[in-house]
Amino acid sequence: MQGVDDWLAELGSAAPTPGGGAAAAMTAAIAAGLVEMVANLTTGRPRYAQYEADTARILARAAALRTEAVGLAEADAAAFGGVMAAYRLPREDPGRAEAVRVATIAAAEPPLRIAAVANEVAGLAAELPGRSNRTVLSDVAVAASTAAAAIESAAINVEINLAGLPEADRAPLAERLTAATTRLAPARDLAAHLRAELAG
Amino acid sequence: MQGVDDWLAELGSAAPTPGGGAAAAMTAAIAAGLVEMVANLTTGRPRYAQYEADTARILARAAALRTEAVGLAEADAAAFGGVMAAYRLPREDPGRAEAVRVATIAAAEPPLRIAAVANEVAGLAAELPGRSNRTVLSDVAVAASTAAAAIESAAINVEINLAGLPEADRAPLAERLTAATTRLAPARDLAAHLRAELAG
Repeated sequence: MQGVDDWLAELGSAAPTPGGGAAAAMTAAIAAGLVEMVANLTTGRPRYAQYEADTARILARAAALRTEAVGLAEADAAAFGGVMAAYRLPREDPGRAEAVRVATIAAAEPPLRIAAVANEVAGLAAELPGRSNRTVLSDVAVAASTAAAAIESAAINVEINLAGLPEADRAPLAERLTAATTRLAPARDLAAHLRAELAG
Repeated sequence: MQGVDDWLAELGSAAPTPGGGAAAAMTAAIAAGLVEMVANLTTGRPRYAQYEADTARILARAAALRTEAVGLAEADAAAFGGVMAAYRLPREDPGRAEAVRVATIAAAEPPLRIAAVANEVAGLAAELPGRSNRTVLSDVAVAASTAAAAIESAAINVEINLAGLPEADRAPLAERLTAATTRLAPARDLAAHLRAELAG
Protein backbone atom coordinates (compact mmCIF):
# COMPACT_ATOMS: atom_id res chain seq x y z
CA MET A 1 0.00 0.00 0.00
CA GLN A 2 3.09 2.24 -0.12
CA GLY A 3 1.99 4.18 -3.22
CA VAL A 4 -1.50 4.68 -1.82
CA ASP A 5 -0.05 5.78 1.55
CA ASP A 6 2.21 8.28 -0.19
CA TRP A 7 -0.59 9.80 -2.24
CA LEU A 8 -2.82 10.13 0.84
CA ALA A 9 0.05 11.74 2.80
CA GLU A 10 0.50 14.27 -0.04
CA LEU A 11 -3.25 14.93 0.04
CA GLY A 12 -3.03 15.64 3.77
CA SER A 13 0.00 17.92 3.46
CA ALA A 14 -0.02 21.71 3.12
CA ALA A 15 1.01 21.34 -0.56
CA PRO A 16 -1.65 23.00 -2.75
CA THR A 17 -2.13 19.81 -4.79
CA PRO A 18 -3.49 17.19 -4.60
CA GLY A 19 -6.59 18.81 -3.10
CA GLY A 20 -10.36 18.49 -3.34
CA GLY A 21 -10.37 18.10 -7.12
CA ALA A 22 -7.91 15.21 -7.07
CA ALA A 23 -9.84 13.70 -4.14
CA ALA A 24 -13.03 13.80 -6.23
CA ALA A 25 -11.16 12.07 -9.08
CA MET A 26 -9.88 9.30 -6.78
CA THR A 27 -13.33 8.82 -5.29
CA ALA A 28 -14.69 8.46 -8.85
CA ALA A 29 -11.92 5.95 -9.62
CA ILE A 30 -12.88 3.87 -6.55
CA ALA A 31 -16.52 3.82 -7.68
CA ALA A 32 -15.47 2.83 -11.21
CA GLY A 33 -13.23 0.07 -9.81
CA LEU A 34 -16.15 -1.40 -7.86
CA VAL A 35 -18.43 -1.43 -10.91
CA GLU A 36 -15.61 -3.08 -12.86
CA MET A 37 -15.14 -5.70 -10.11
CA VAL A 38 -18.85 -6.58 -10.10
CA ALA A 39 -18.80 -6.89 -13.92
CA ASN A 40 -15.65 -9.05 -13.67
CA LEU A 41 -17.45 -11.35 -11.21
CA THR A 42 -20.47 -11.57 -13.53
CA THR A 43 -18.96 -12.05 -16.97
CA GLY A 44 -18.81 -15.63 -18.17
CA ARG A 45 -21.20 -16.97 -15.49
CA PRO A 46 -23.98 -19.11 -16.98
CA ARG A 47 -26.62 -17.62 -14.66
CA TYR A 48 -26.06 -14.16 -16.17
CA ALA A 49 -25.37 -15.28 -19.76
CA GLN A 50 -28.40 -13.38 -21.11
CA TYR A 51 -26.79 -10.10 -19.93
CA GLU A 52 -23.31 -10.92 -21.25
CA ALA A 53 -23.23 -8.15 -23.90
CA ASP A 54 -24.19 -5.55 -21.29
CA THR A 55 -21.74 -6.99 -18.77
CA ALA A 56 -18.89 -6.83 -21.28
CA ARG A 57 -19.77 -3.23 -22.18
CA ILE A 58 -20.03 -2.18 -18.51
CA LEU A 59 -16.74 -3.93 -17.70
CA ALA A 60 -14.82 -2.23 -20.50
CA ARG A 61 -16.36 1.18 -19.83
CA ALA A 62 -15.79 1.04 -16.04
CA ALA A 63 -12.14 0.10 -16.56
CA ALA A 64 -11.68 3.00 -19.00
CA LEU A 65 -13.38 5.45 -16.60
CA ARG A 66 -11.22 4.23 -13.70
CA THR A 67 -8.06 4.95 -15.71
CA GLU A 68 -9.38 8.28 -16.94
CA ALA A 69 -10.25 9.36 -13.38
CA VAL A 70 -6.68 8.80 -12.19
CA GLY A 71 -5.41 10.94 -15.06
CA LEU A 72 -7.92 13.65 -14.14
CA ALA A 73 -6.46 13.84 -10.62
CA GLU A 74 -3.20 14.92 -12.26
CA ALA A 75 -4.90 17.22 -14.76
CA ASP A 76 -6.68 18.96 -11.90
CA ALA A 77 -3.38 19.64 -10.15
CA ALA A 78 -1.87 21.04 -13.37
CA ALA A 79 -4.85 23.33 -14.01
CA PHE A 80 -4.76 24.60 -10.43
CA GLY A 81 -1.08 25.41 -10.95
CA GLY A 82 -2.12 27.57 -13.91
CA VAL A 83 -4.51 29.60 -11.76
CA MET A 84 -1.84 30.08 -9.09
CA ALA A 85 0.67 31.24 -11.75
CA ALA A 86 -1.83 33.80 -13.09
CA TYR A 87 -2.48 35.17 -9.58
CA ARG A 88 1.29 35.53 -9.08
CA LEU A 89 1.57 37.96 -12.03
CA PRO A 90 2.39 41.51 -10.86
CA ARG A 91 -0.76 43.41 -9.89
CA GLU A 92 0.20 46.21 -12.32
CA ASP A 93 0.43 43.76 -15.26
CA PRO A 94 -2.36 44.84 -17.68
CA GLY A 95 -2.83 41.22 -18.79
CA ARG A 96 -3.26 39.84 -15.25
CA ALA A 97 -7.08 39.91 -15.05
CA GLU A 98 -7.43 38.19 -18.42
CA ALA A 99 -4.76 35.61 -17.48
CA VAL A 100 -6.66 34.83 -14.25
CA ARG A 101 -9.95 34.58 -16.17
CA VAL A 102 -8.53 32.21 -18.80
CA ALA A 103 -6.77 30.05 -16.19
CA THR A 104 -9.94 29.89 -14.07
CA ILE A 105 -12.02 28.76 -17.07
CA ALA A 106 -9.36 26.14 -17.84
CA ALA A 107 -9.34 25.01 -14.19
CA ALA A 108 -13.06 24.25 -14.37
CA GLU A 109 -12.44 21.63 -17.09
CA PRO A 110 -10.88 18.80 -15.02
CA PRO A 111 -13.58 18.84 -12.30
CA LEU A 112 -16.27 19.12 -15.00
CA ARG A 113 -14.87 15.97 -16.58
CA ILE A 114 -14.52 14.29 -13.16
CA ALA A 115 -18.21 14.98 -12.55
CA ALA A 116 -19.08 13.53 -15.97
CA VAL A 117 -16.96 10.43 -15.30
CA ALA A 118 -18.55 9.86 -11.87
CA ASN A 119 -21.98 10.52 -13.37
CA GLU A 120 -21.37 7.84 -16.00
CA VAL A 121 -20.08 5.41 -13.33
CA ALA A 122 -23.32 6.00 -11.39
CA GLY A 123 -25.26 5.18 -14.56
CA LEU A 124 -23.34 1.92 -15.02
CA ALA A 125 -23.91 0.99 -11.36
CA ALA A 126 -27.65 1.53 -11.87
CA GLU A 127 -27.65 -1.07 -14.65
CA LEU A 128 -26.23 -3.82 -12.42
CA PRO A 129 -28.92 -4.81 -9.88
CA GLY A 130 -30.75 -7.90 -11.12
CA ARG A 131 -28.24 -8.47 -13.92
CA SER A 132 -25.02 -9.00 -12.01
CA ASN A 133 -23.58 -11.48 -9.51
CA ARG A 134 -25.91 -11.24 -6.53
CA THR A 135 -23.13 -12.14 -4.05
CA VAL A 136 -21.50 -8.76 -4.71
CA LEU A 137 -24.66 -6.63 -4.74
CA SER A 138 -23.32 -4.79 -1.67
CA ASP A 139 -20.42 -3.61 -3.83
CA VAL A 140 -22.92 -2.10 -6.26
CA ALA A 141 -24.43 -0.20 -3.31
CA VAL A 142 -20.98 1.03 -2.25
CA ALA A 143 -20.19 2.01 -5.85
CA ALA A 144 -23.40 4.07 -6.06
CA SER A 145 -22.76 5.83 -2.73
CA THR A 146 -19.16 6.54 -3.70
CA ALA A 147 -20.05 7.77 -7.19
CA ALA A 148 -22.58 10.17 -5.67
CA ALA A 149 -19.89 11.66 -3.40
CA ALA A 150 -17.55 11.98 -6.39
CA ILE A 151 -20.20 13.81 -8.42
CA GLU A 152 -20.91 16.22 -5.55
CA SER A 153 -17.21 16.73 -4.81
CA ALA A 154 -16.41 17.48 -8.45
CA ALA A 155 -19.40 19.86 -8.67
CA ILE A 156 -18.12 21.79 -5.65
CA ASN A 157 -14.77 22.19 -7.40
CA VAL A 158 -16.38 23.41 -10.62
CA GLU A 159 -18.59 25.87 -8.75
CA ILE A 160 -15.76 27.56 -6.83
CA ASN A 161 -14.17 28.30 -10.19
CA LEU A 162 -17.46 29.57 -11.63
CA ALA A 163 -18.01 31.89 -8.64
CA GLY A 164 -15.03 34.00 -9.72
CA LEU A 165 -16.03 34.33 -13.39
CA PRO A 166 -18.14 36.91 -15.24
CA GLU A 167 -21.70 35.75 -16.00
CA ALA A 168 -21.02 35.28 -19.73
CA ASP A 169 -18.25 32.79 -18.97
CA ARG A 170 -20.18 31.14 -16.19
CA ALA A 171 -23.45 30.27 -17.96
CA PRO A 172 -22.14 27.69 -20.48
CA LEU A 173 -20.00 25.98 -17.81
CA ALA A 174 -22.94 25.88 -15.39
CA GLU A 175 -25.05 24.27 -18.10
CA ARG A 176 -22.42 21.58 -18.68
CA LEU A 177 -22.19 20.99 -14.94
CA THR A 178 -25.94 20.43 -14.73
CA ALA A 179 -25.65 17.79 -17.46
CA ALA A 180 -22.73 16.14 -15.61
CA THR A 181 -24.56 15.81 -12.27
CA THR A 182 -27.89 14.29 -13.29
CA ARG A 183 -27.16 11.04 -11.45
CA LEU A 184 -26.23 12.47 -8.05
CA ALA A 185 -29.67 12.04 -6.48
CA PRO A 186 -30.46 8.74 -8.29
CA ALA A 187 -27.12 7.27 -7.15
CA ARG A 188 -27.86 8.20 -3.53
CA ASP A 189 -31.32 6.66 -3.86
CA LEU A 190 -29.88 3.48 -5.38
CA ALA A 191 -27.36 3.12 -2.53
CA ALA A 192 -30.08 3.64 0.09
CA HIS A 193 -32.47 1.25 -1.67
CA LEU A 194 -29.87 -1.53 -2.02
CA ARG A 195 -28.69 -0.97 1.55
CA ALA A 196 -32.22 -1.49 2.87
CA GLU A 197 -32.68 -4.57 0.68
CA LEU A 198 -29.37 -6.15 1.76
CA ALA A 199 -29.88 -5.44 5.45
CA GLY A 200 -33.05 -7.49 5.15
CA MET B 1 0.57 7.45 -9.23
CA GLN B 2 1.80 3.89 -9.90
CA GLY B 3 0.90 2.57 -6.44
CA VAL B 4 -2.53 4.16 -6.61
CA ASP B 5 -3.09 2.80 -10.12
CA ASP B 6 -2.11 -0.69 -8.99
CA TRP B 7 -4.45 -0.64 -6.00
CA LEU B 8 -7.35 0.58 -8.14
CA ALA B 9 -6.63 -2.12 -10.76
CA GLU B 10 -6.75 -4.75 -7.99
CA LEU B 11 -10.03 -3.27 -6.79
CA GLY B 12 -11.45 -3.60 -10.31
CA SER B 13 -10.23 -7.18 -10.77
CA ALA B 14 -12.18 -10.37 -10.04
CA ALA B 15 -10.00 -10.99 -6.97
CA PRO B 16 -12.24 -11.15 -3.87
CA THR B 17 -10.24 -8.42 -2.12
CA PRO B 18 -9.93 -5.48 -2.11
CA GLY B 19 -13.70 -5.01 -2.36
CA GLY B 20 -16.38 -2.72 -0.95
CA GLY B 21 -14.96 -2.76 2.58
CA ALA B 22 -11.51 -1.68 1.45
CA ALA B 23 -13.12 0.91 -0.84
CA ALA B 24 -14.98 2.34 2.17
CA ALA B 25 -11.67 2.50 4.08
CA MET B 26 -9.93 4.34 1.23
CA THR B 27 -12.83 6.76 0.89
CA ALA B 28 -12.53 7.43 4.64
CA ALA B 29 -8.78 7.98 4.22
CA ILE B 30 -9.39 10.53 1.44
CA ALA B 31 -11.83 12.43 3.68
CA ALA B 32 -9.33 12.35 6.57
CA GLY B 33 -6.55 13.58 4.26
CA LEU B 34 -8.66 16.57 3.21
CA VAL B 35 -9.43 17.53 6.83
CA GLU B 36 -5.72 17.20 7.58
CA MET B 37 -4.81 19.40 4.60
CA VAL B 38 -7.22 22.14 5.69
CA ALA B 39 -5.78 22.00 9.23
CA ASN B 40 -2.25 22.12 7.76
CA LEU B 41 -3.20 25.26 5.80
CA THR B 42 -4.68 26.86 8.95
CA THR B 43 -2.12 26.08 11.66
CA GLY B 44 0.33 28.88 12.39
CA ARG B 45 -1.68 31.55 10.51
CA PRO B 46 -2.18 34.71 12.62
CA ARG B 47 -5.79 35.11 11.44
CA TYR B 48 -6.74 31.76 13.01
CA ALA B 49 -4.45 32.00 16.06
CA GLN B 50 -7.36 31.88 18.49
CA TYR B 51 -8.28 28.42 17.16
CA GLU B 52 -4.72 27.07 17.21
CA ALA B 53 -5.29 24.47 19.94
CA ASP B 54 -8.31 23.07 18.05
CA THR B 55 -6.43 23.19 14.76
CA ALA B 56 -3.49 21.27 16.20
CA ARG B 57 -5.83 18.65 17.68
CA ILE B 58 -7.79 18.28 14.42
CA LEU B 59 -4.54 18.05 12.42
CA ALA B 60 -3.08 15.30 14.60
CA ARG B 61 -6.33 13.36 14.79
CA ALA B 62 -7.04 13.55 11.04
CA ALA B 63 -3.53 12.30 10.25
CA ALA B 64 -3.96 9.39 12.68
CA LEU B 65 -7.37 8.50 11.21
CA ARG B 66 -5.98 8.62 7.67
CA THR B 67 -3.27 6.13 8.60
CA GLU B 68 -5.70 3.93 10.52
CA ALA B 69 -8.10 3.86 7.56
CA VAL B 70 -5.42 2.51 5.24
CA GLY B 71 -4.66 -0.24 7.74
CA LEU B 72 -8.36 -1.07 7.95
CA ALA B 73 -8.47 -1.67 4.19
CA GLU B 74 -6.00 -4.49 4.77
CA ALA B 75 -7.74 -5.74 7.93
CA ASP B 76 -11.00 -5.95 5.96
CA ALA B 77 -9.36 -8.15 3.32
CA ALA B 78 -7.91 -10.44 6.00
CA ALA B 79 -11.26 -10.79 7.81
CA PHE B 80 -13.02 -11.55 4.53
CA GLY B 81 -10.44 -14.27 3.91
CA GLY B 82 -11.46 -15.80 7.24
CA VAL B 83 -15.10 -15.99 6.18
CA MET B 84 -14.15 -17.58 2.85
CA ALA B 85 -11.98 -20.15 4.67
CA ALA B 86 -14.87 -21.08 6.99
CA TYR B 87 -17.25 -21.53 4.05
CA ARG B 88 -14.68 -23.82 2.39
CA LEU B 89 -14.83 -26.30 5.31
CA PRO B 90 -16.49 -29.60 4.30
CA ARG B 91 -20.28 -29.37 4.61
CA GLU B 92 -20.26 -32.46 6.86
CA ASP B 93 -17.79 -30.84 9.31
CA PRO B 94 -19.77 -30.47 12.59
CA GLY B 95 -17.81 -27.31 13.42
CA ARG B 96 -18.54 -25.58 10.10
CA ALA B 97 -21.62 -23.56 11.16
CA GLU B 98 -19.85 -22.26 14.26
CA ALA B 99 -16.70 -21.43 12.25
CA VAL B 100 -18.79 -19.46 9.75
CA ARG B 101 -20.58 -17.65 12.59
CA VAL B 102 -17.35 -16.70 14.38
CA ALA B 103 -15.66 -15.59 11.15
CA THR B 104 -18.72 -13.53 10.15
CA ILE B 105 -18.76 -11.76 13.53
CA ALA B 106 -15.03 -11.07 13.13
CA ALA B 107 -15.58 -9.79 9.59
CA ALA B 108 -17.99 -7.16 10.89
CA GLU B 109 -15.23 -5.59 12.98
CA PRO B 110 -13.16 -3.87 10.26
CA PRO B 111 -16.16 -2.17 8.55
CA LEU B 112 -17.52 -1.20 12.01
CA ARG B 113 -14.22 0.51 12.74
CA ILE B 114 -14.15 2.06 9.23
CA ALA B 115 -17.59 3.54 9.92
CA ALA B 116 -16.37 4.88 13.29
CA VAL B 117 -13.27 6.41 11.64
CA ALA B 118 -15.31 8.07 8.89
CA ASN B 119 -17.85 9.23 11.48
CA GLU B 120 -15.06 10.88 13.49
CA VAL B 121 -13.63 12.47 10.32
CA ALA B 122 -17.07 13.91 9.61
CA GLY B 123 -17.11 15.35 13.13
CA LEU B 124 -13.70 16.98 12.62
CA ALA B 125 -14.84 18.43 9.27
CA ALA B 126 -17.87 19.95 11.01
CA GLU B 127 -15.56 21.84 13.36
CA LEU B 128 -13.70 23.59 10.54
CA PRO B 129 -16.07 26.13 8.93
CA GLY B 130 -15.43 29.58 10.39
CA ARG B 131 -12.25 28.44 12.14
CA SER B 132 -10.09 27.33 9.24
CA ASN B 133 -8.44 28.85 6.20
CA ARG B 134 -11.34 30.20 4.17
CA THR B 135 -9.50 29.70 0.85
CA VAL B 136 -9.86 25.93 1.27
CA LEU B 137 -13.45 25.86 2.52
CA SER B 138 -14.39 23.90 -0.62
CA ASP B 139 -12.08 21.14 0.60
CA VAL B 140 -14.06 20.98 3.84
CA ALA B 141 -17.21 20.50 1.74
CA VAL B 142 -15.54 17.71 -0.25
CA ALA B 143 -14.29 16.11 2.98
CA ALA B 144 -17.83 16.11 4.41
CA SER B 145 -19.36 14.62 1.24
CA THR B 146 -16.63 11.97 1.06
CA ALA B 147 -16.85 11.09 4.76
CA ALA B 148 -20.62 10.60 4.38
CA ALA B 149 -20.07 8.12 1.53
CA ALA B 150 -17.44 6.30 3.61
CA ILE B 151 -19.85 5.99 6.57
CA GLU B 152 -22.62 4.66 4.33
CA SER B 153 -20.26 2.29 2.48
CA ALA B 154 -18.87 0.88 5.72
CA ALA B 155 -22.40 0.49 7.13
CA ILE B 156 -23.43 -1.52 4.07
CA ASN B 157 -20.49 -3.83 4.67
CA VAL B 158 -21.35 -4.30 8.34
CA GLU B 159 -25.00 -4.97 7.53
CA ILE B 160 -24.33 -7.73 4.98
CA ASN B 161 -22.41 -9.54 7.72
CA LEU B 162 -25.19 -8.96 10.25
CA ALA B 163 -27.84 -10.31 7.87
CA GLY B 164 -26.31 -13.79 8.13
CA LEU B 165 -26.08 -13.89 11.93
CA PRO B 166 -28.51 -15.08 14.63
CA GLU B 167 -30.40 -12.26 16.37
CA ALA B 168 -28.41 -12.61 19.63
CA ASP B 169 -25.14 -11.95 17.76
CA ARG B 170 -26.67 -9.27 15.60
CA ALA B 171 -28.15 -6.93 18.24
CA PRO B 172 -24.91 -5.73 19.91
CA LEU B 173 -23.21 -5.20 16.54
CA ALA B 174 -26.23 -3.29 15.21
CA GLU B 175 -26.11 -1.06 18.28
CA ARG B 176 -22.43 -0.30 17.70
CA LEU B 177 -23.14 0.43 14.05
CA THR B 178 -25.84 2.95 15.02
CA ALA B 179 -23.28 4.73 17.23
CA ALA B 180 -20.73 4.72 14.38
CA THR B 181 -23.05 6.30 11.80
CA THR B 182 -24.48 9.29 13.69
CA ARG B 183 -22.76 11.78 11.41
CA LEU B 184 -23.91 10.42 8.04
CA ALA B 185 -26.86 12.78 7.64
CA PRO B 186 -25.11 15.79 9.28
CA ALA B 187 -22.09 15.33 6.98
CA ARG B 188 -24.34 15.32 3.89
CA ASP B 189 -26.08 18.43 5.18
CA LEU B 190 -22.75 20.17 5.83
CA ALA B 191 -21.53 19.39 2.30
CA ALA B 192 -24.77 20.68 0.77
CA HIS B 193 -24.76 23.80 2.95
CA LEU B 194 -21.13 24.69 2.16
CA ARG B 195 -21.68 23.93 -1.53
CA ALA B 196 -24.56 26.40 -1.68
CA GLU B 197 -22.54 29.01 0.23
CA LEU B 198 -19.47 28.64 -2.00
CA ALA B 199 -21.44 28.69 -5.25
CA GLY B 200 -22.68 32.10 -4.13
